[in-house]
Amino acid sequence: MTVSTNSDSLLTPRTKLVRAPEHGTHDRATINRILDEGFVCHVGLISSGQPFVIPTGYGRVGDTLYFHGSAASRMLRNLQTGVELCLTVTLLDGLVLARSAFAHSMNYRSVVILGTAELVQDDEEKLAALQAISEQIVPGRWAEVRHPTAQELKATSVLRLPLTEASAKIRSGPPGDAEDDYALQVWAGVLPLSLVPGQPVEDAASKVQQVPE
Amino acid sequence: MTVSTNSDSLLTPRTKLVRAPEHGTHDRATINRILDEGFVCHVGLISSGQPFVIPTGYGRVGDTLYFHGSAASRMLRNLQTGVELCLTVTLLDGLVLARSAFAHSMNYRSVVILGTAELVQDDEEKLAALQAISEQIVPGRWAEVRHPTAQELKATSVLRLPLTEASAKIRSGPPGDAEDDYALQVWAGVLPLSLVPGQPVEDAASKVQQVPE
Repeated sequence: MTVSTNSDSLLTPRTKLVRAPEHGTHDRATINRILDEGFVCHVGLISSGQPFVIPTGYGRVGDTLYFHGSAASRMLRNLQTGVELCLTVTLLDGLVLARSAFAHSMNYRSVVILGTAELVQDDEEKLAALQAISEQIVPGRWAEVRHPTAQELKATSVLRLPLTEASAKIRSGPPGDAEDDYALQVWAGVLPLSLVPGQPVEDAASKVQQVPE
Repeated sequence: MTVSTNSDSLLTPRTKLVRAPEHGTHDRATINRILDEGFVCHVGLISSGQPFVIPTGYGRVGDTLYFHGSAASRMLRNLQTGVELCLTVTLLDGLVLARSAFAHSMNYRSVVILGTAELVQDDEEKLAALQAISEQIVPGRWAEVRHPTAQELKATSVLRLPLTEASAKIRSGPPGDAEDDYALQVWAGVLPLSLVPGQPVEDAASKVQQVPE
């Protein structure tokens, strides 16, 4: 595997984009921005020759991505030597309504990371990883809650995936209809979508009324 | 592979849930409801021994799931005999804020489907599949737009995945904190999340002002 010598590019032969390369990039800053905005990743791995895709939370520390090992429980027994996997994060930004069925699309930003994930053994690194996973979901929350005990740390497996081989794909903007179709009497445009928080639902057993921001 | 003889259950040895089986089900109706609510699936497949996870749109017709073959372009050349894959749909319903870092979680509904996908060759089936994929995104849209030409149909590859082997996982409700932690002065509860449409952005070249519902 040839890894790009430019550390700002995560291009490798395996992450070279085959389809619609004009929507793609291997720029580390762009990839990080997409990763930092997501809540859920989809981890793909092979078990007994069968691919599995499992959703889970994740967090980033510099050029390393961490995620809960539970997502990889199917193959945790093989983890002594690391596990080849693919981790994908997709942000859906909108539905692209074109004049023809064919030109319909979605606006999205996605990152596909390839690599070998390893079990985090060191307690200090594991704690930093759990903090990153927590902060990814609710920034500032780590400072407010009870931190993991030694026993909880032991019960949690965290995997480390280096950000060395990845690509991003971004589609934005209006539909790209065929030239003749612009004359059609069909509304066309984008219906933006975003993941919006609703009214917080307080746990009935909660002792504190102050909802975190 | 032993497929369950009960057609309402998609339980097989490979979809038996290893982790948190109390959150899991193999009930076809539950699985269909989750599938029908999503916009994007993540398709996992193996190419040269490496797993890949690609996001794409999909649609359901009865007990069959269809998705764009573009997502599977990496292995379309092998498609004569079908491709073993995993297709996962995840709906994120909320962030679960517990009193300890350890008990933090997410509320979600997800479906994991295993199976062999095949290229749809028949034009009539392909058209019905494209209609299902379109209706999944914007119900009613198919009736308003220009339908695919023979050339467009040819340029689109669609894959068929039978819904015979699948599982769903659902987590809902408040955090499950350790007993001692309920005394802590930390706000706890659920921050609901939903994918919300924003103001439609009309294509500058649009000839119709009437936004579809």
